[in-house]
Amino acid sequence: MFYPNNIKKTYTTKNTHANRGMDLEYLIEITNEYYLDHDIAYIYKKPTPIGIVKVNYSLKKIEEAYFQKASTLDYNGLYNGYYIEFDAKETKKKNYFPLANVHPHQIQHIRNIIKGKGIVFLLIMINDEYYVLNGQDFIAFVDADTRKSIPYEYIKTKGYELKYNFNKGLDYLKVIDKLIGDGIYEKN
Amino acid sequence: MFYPNNIKKTYTTKNTHANRGMDLEYLIEITNEYYLDHDIAYIYKKPTPIGIVKVNYSLKKIEEAYFQKASTLDYNGLYNGYYIEFDAKETKKKNYFPLANVHPHQIQHIRNIIKGKGIVFLLIMINDEYYVLNGQDFIAFVDADTRKSIPYEYIKTKGYELKYNFNKGLDYLKVIDKLIGDGIYEKN
Repeated sequence: MFYPNNIKKTYTTKNTHANRGMDLEYLIEITNEYYLDHDIAYIYKKPTPIGIVKVNYSLKKIEEAYFQKASTLDYNGLYNGYYIEFDAKETKKKNYFPLANVHPHQIQHIRNIIKGKGIVFLLIMINDEYYVLNGQDFIAFVDADTRKSIPYEYIKTKGYELKYNFNKGLDYLKVIDKLIGDGIYEKN
Repeated sequence: MFYPNNIKKTYTTKNTHANRGMDLEYLIEITNEYYLDHDIAYIYKKPTPIGIVKVNYSLKKIEEAYFQKASTLDYNGLYNGYYIEFDAKETKKKNYFPLANVHPHQIQHIRNIIKGKGIVFLLIMINDEYYVLNGQDFIAFVDADTRKSIPYEYIKTKGYELKYNFNKGLDYLKVIDKLIGDGIYEKN
């Protein structure tokens, strides 16, 4: 089994459905491994950015550091010539997804990826359902609405639901294939 | 000035030519900032992967962690619909670039990016000169030769030299534009 450069791996000795649970990040790990093992796509979780304060160079040991906020999204990579970037977002709210979950740098970055002709989306877990909300539909909401959260109905209507698959996890490229087929992305 | 999510920033209070010197990584930082500020490309250095051993959750402080090796390349992003990935490699050797500088996972990853129709290259500093060595030419050498280093002459012949520019740093996309124009990359 392939492990991405993900700090989570240091907390568990073995990542199985049983001992790690079905959290969104783990499902995406299954999916990205499936894509990698089958030469479908090369998509990785970026390491969590860390601000390092103190290093013991003789021991090559970091002795003081702090987690930092990323200004890009957590996952990016390559799919058959397409640049793909996305973030995984979970909410426990039933009726809405709070926009506070996506910080301003990330919103700007989503705009940039659209400008640069990349594929960008959010993979949202809400009400124990999983949705791909395409970057364009996310930005359209942010620009048109003054609300601080996206209603569940908007996600359900504009997004594409993903069903869990034991081998593939959350096969989000199936949605991307559909969107590519619909011609919504610019080509070179 | 924009700072990528780069642990280096925690070591200096201000990144200027004067106090940080003209190392390769810093030059690429200038270049990527230039591209970002001018909406040319969105290319970031990935955070260094860290294996975390001990966290003080109440202080949100990492108390023991170690640097890990990345299995991908250090920089990736989006340029006008193209997926771009590269690594910066310096050598003090005058006549050759030791292949030990690129570890086996990275070589496999370079093969993957080529398969996935992305743009991948090494930005090599040798003899105080800077070269873009395209992934295809790098892999061709690795596959054809049993030597443990790439001769300087191979890099000079197959690579594309970059000259330092005060505003743009090392404008590597100029080379990529040429290669795109030559039709060496597959299109969707």
